[in-house]
Amino acid sequence: MVTTTYQVQGMTCGHCVSAVSAEVGAIPGVNDVQVDLAAGRVSVTSEQPLDENAVRAAVDEAGYELLGA
Amino acid sequence: MVTTTYQVQGMTCGHCVSAVSAEVGAIPGVNDVQVDLAAGRVSVTSEQPLDENAVRAAVDEAGYELLGA
Repeated sequence: MVTTTYQVQGMTCGHCVSAVSAEVGAIPGVNDVQVDLAAGRVSVTSEQPLDENAVRAAVDEAGYELLGA
Repeated sequence: MVTTTYQVQGMTCGHCVSAVSAEVGAIPGVNDVQVDLAAGRVSVTSEQPLDENAVRAAVDEAGYELLGA
């Protein structure tokens, strides 16, 4: 298992957390997503290291911006 | 038609707007709900004047607080 923590901009409430969790959680190979709303951090646990572009696309699809890992 | 504008606390993003719009829009007799996120204002248009308690309950159900009309 690999857990990578990303910085995500724009999340403001529990709905935002749900939206990001759902989109990132739908990436193939992702086992768990933990969001720290106050810190703007999203920790993604997966079987294999993920393509950051896939994570970026999922965060974008949810309506937010991935700033980096 | 009557339009009443309420002050609602706690809305931070588009998901919050959707949640409040859906709950308040489901009150019988409500024809339209407009939310000004930045101002925290919810304008409700209805056929007859609404019971403020019904609006308060809907806003509460969505997870926010109605401060007053």
